[in-house]
Amino acid sequence: MTQFACRIIDILTHRHTVLLNRKDCERVDIRAHDRVNLRRGDINVTATVDTTSTIVNTGEIGITSDLTPELSVKEGDIIEVTLLPAPNSALFIRKKIMGQKLTRDEIYSIVQDSVKGNLSDVEMAGFLVAEQFYGLTDEEQVWLTKALADTGETIDFQKPVYDKHSVGGVPGNKVSLLIVPIVASAGLLIPKTSSRAITSPSGTADTMSVLAPVEFSTVELKKLALKTGGAIVWGGSLRLAPADDVFIGVEHPLRIDPEPQMIASIMAKKLAVGADFMVLDLPVGNEAKVPSSDEGRRLSFKFINIGDRLGIKVRCGITYGGQPVGYTIGPALEAREALEALEGKGPTSLIEKSTALAGMLLEFGGKAVRGEGQALARQILASGKALEKMCEIVDAQGGDSKVRSTQIQVGECRAEIIAPCDGYITRVSNAAMNQIARAAGAPVEKGAGILLYGKEGHKVSKGEKVMEIFGERDSRVDEAYNLAIKLSPISIEGMLLQEVSGD
Amino acid sequence: MTQFACRIIDILTHRHTVLLNRKDCERVDIRAHDRVNLRRGDINVTATVDTTSTIVNTGEIGITSDLTPELSVKEGDIIEVTLLPAPNSALFIRKKIMGQKLTRDEIYSIVQDSVKGNLSDVEMAGFLVAEQFYGLTDEEQVWLTKALADTGETIDFQKPVYDKHSVGGVPGNKVSLLIVPIVASAGLLIPKTSSRAITSPSGTADTMSVLAPVEFSTVELKKLALKTGGAIVWGGSLRLAPADDVFIGVEHPLRIDPEPQMIASIMAKKLAVGADFMVLDLPVGNEAKVPSSDEGRRLSFKFINIGDRLGIKVRCGITYGGQPVGYTIGPALEAREALEALEGKGPTSLIEKSTALAGMLLEFGGKAVRGEGQALARQILASGKALEKMCEIVDAQGGDSKVRSTQIQVGECRAEIIAPCDGYITRVSNAAMNQIARAAGAPVEKGAGILLYGKEGHKVSKGEKVMEIFGERDSRVDEAYNLAIKLSPISIEGMLLQEVSGD
Repeated sequence: MTQFACRIIDILTHRHTVLLNRKDCERVDIRAHDRVNLRRGDINVTATVDTTSTIVNTGEIGITSDLTPELSVKEGDIIEVTLLPAPNSALFIRKKIMGQKLTRDEIYSIVQDSVKGNLSDVEMAGFLVAEQFYGLTDEEQVWLTKALADTGETIDFQKPVYDKHSVGGVPGNKVSLLIVPIVASAGLLIPKTSSRAITSPSGTADTMSVLAPVEFSTVELKKLALKTGGAIVWGGSLRLAPADDVFIGVEHPLRIDPEPQMIASIMAKKLAVGADFMVLDLPVGNEAKVPSSDEGRRLSFKFINIGDRLGIKVRCGITYGGQPVGYTIGPALEAREALEALEGKGPTSLIEKSTALAGMLLEFGGKAVRGEGQALARQILASGKALEKMCEIVDAQGGDSKVRSTQIQVGECRAEIIAPCDGYITRVSNAAMNQIARAAGAPVEKGAGILLYGKEGHKVSKGEKVMEIFGERDSRVDEAYNLAIKLSPISIEGMLLQEVSGD
Repeated sequence: MTQFACRIIDILTHRHTVLLNRKDCERVDIRAHDRVNLRRGDINVTATVDTTSTIVNTGEIGITSDLTPELSVKEGDIIEVTLLPAPNSALFIRKKIMGQKLTRDEIYSIVQDSVKGNLSDVEMAGFLVAEQFYGLTDEEQVWLTKALADTGETIDFQKPVYDKHSVGGVPGNKVSLLIVPIVASAGLLIPKTSSRAITSPSGTADTMSVLAPVEFSTVELKKLALKTGGAIVWGGSLRLAPADDVFIGVEHPLRIDPEPQMIASIMAKKLAVGADFMVLDLPVGNEAKVPSSDEGRRLSFKFINIGDRLGIKVRCGITYGGQPVGYTIGPALEAREALEALEGKGPTSLIEKSTALAGMLLEFGGKAVRGEGQALARQILASGKALEKMCEIVDAQGGDSKVRSTQIQVGECRAEIIAPCDGYITRVSNAAMNQIARAAGAPVEKGAGILLYGKEGHKVSKGEKVMEIFGERDSRVDEAYNLAIKLSPISIEGMLLQEVSGD
């Protein structure tokens, strides 16, 4: 234990960090990242040490303003500092790094300490890299998933819950806006929570937010889903498995997405909403997250097995993820296309994929026998019942219940990309489409995005429009256009590559 | 590119960090740990982003006072912020995490960016954990070592350089204070750089600092070593392989010490001083760093092989590390014991180990044929030449050239530990000795430490003194005494375990 004079410091970005002079640290053998107990009278607070040569003098401790009320200190007060042993969770992380299997309690301790801020980013990075390297056993995978779910809120709908999830990676994937009303209008409960875009131009929550509010509490979600049978809301406002965000914050700078963490992240949120049945969309393709069908099948078995251990029946759909789904990318354009499909005017790729996945849920719910689900889904869509249900859902979430595709406002600024030659479209690049749509302003500017006029296999003539960029500001559309010229997001084969003459 | 109004903030502990409001970050898709370019007029500066919901408002950027002169900004000035791609080194770290081999240039890039502060702690943690898993190939090991050496200063003595290093882990290991003068008095150049204690009660630099100053620049070291043939200085003031410290700062919270990093750290410092020949002390024992002789042999071959590729001839001595070397622990007590040995009064274990290792260097230097080195070292020690040389070295470093063991001041506060029974000492615990000596104040309080009256195999009688704690303050000695009572640092076997009677 050593005594220091308190010096109150305006800011430090990390919660419960104190600053000590390097000389003092050497003297009392405390190092950066170490945890210390701060005592003032009867008050004890745990903090993490950062070191400095300049900001505080020897004998002083820099305390942030967030700690001053907790410790009830003022400038110059004396605080006793005692080095604390590392939390057990840090030792469990070390154990995992050394290749040992963790117990249920050890995994819970790591997850809980991550949420409480008791583990540093460096320690969490150690855990994630170890996961990347060793993977998790099935038991560890189940515990991690449950531990993540237990850190946040949970909802008990008190009836069977159906759910759908996509592992992502393909632009224009607005299928949830069709699946939810199809499944709900068959009488099954499907309270879909979804993400905002992270690296894509529009997450399902972004697209839905064009039609209705998407931010609700768990209590509100329960009420509105039970009313209409369906909901499409943003998961972020629900505090489902919040530990997940803490781990994602560390995965980002490392550019890793360890498979066990990805599985736990998805399944924890399903556990939290009490899902009993789940259909998982695995888009497979060169530029999608899952590169091959074999890999898709391997992942499917993993999800089915873990689902089994968690009491969630899982079916997986390996879908074509080689190019965008439908013809639109970006919140408003995608919302418009989804409504068109509900109104009976949608493109085949979107309808095929949506009804196939919805059909699997209808089969799960006993609404169709195995193999007949998609036909029933198509029938519900064609009957207009899905559109009607979507209007109910939009209404329940506070949107305009009479909304139609023609009313959706898309960006007024436009730029066209023209085919430079006659030929067949041989490739539409997901990655380039994502970048261009984001450059145009999506997902923050909802009217921004891309409308495709052709996809793989389409024949185009020189000078014909192949895609159009939409935006809310000319400067962003210009930026996106220049990027499109640079990236060549659409490849057309048909050019004369070489002319060979006989002379 | 987005514009922000500058807000100058007093402190942030990490160099070149800027603060953005979370809402802005979401809007422009920048995340914590991302790198951004800050532009003001013609000035461009790279910084790392941290995020906050409270400290800066939307539209504002928090700039630390260290950045204000670089950007020449004042409160309210507009700064343009552009997201930068990750540095290539971060991608190379990811590559290593994914199990791929790195090239020379990739390893150099990681090491250089670590030193420049271009890589975050999380990214460096990823690299170290990956090293722990995959190890390094011999080529990677050589590049890492050279890259570490190249980050700092180097010395060219323009003659063959002899060196000695211990991987550590055993208390009381003051052998360098004997080896350096023995080897130097035979005419070989041995400019020994050493560490201060990190987790032990006294590093060689701490012990030497009792006799003479140990902080010198590389220019001063070169001068004084060439003058006397030997030197014992603190490596920390020389800026040899400074990248090493950056990595150690990340290893500490993870509690890992990946073998390739340990080897690189040792060999880089030898490269930097231009070592041609090196003897490596590998103390083996239960509580030492190297747990078994087999492990010691494996490590030896590793060092010899890497040394070969670096142009450093290495010989390894696997030594007994099961209990402290000699009878003293702590800077002043160890300095006194080393001088006693040079004066011809030292304990066998210290003299045996020191002369064995010194002998290997004498053989390297052609001063003795193979197998005769230790005898020559003993002879040099017995002749008084080593003491004479030590006095020259102490004098050159600015200490008292006439120093003798009897003049060394040790702590005046004392506490004795008494044998509770008759018997033989069966175990002296390194770990407990370390803790007790540190509790007494070592290495900061130089007079603090432990004097042993017996070691393994010694017979003691009930009530006899087995160890004595020294300190500069009664409170610390009391603390150390209480710890000693709790830890039982010395085990004595001889108690009647069970009495069996015939009735």
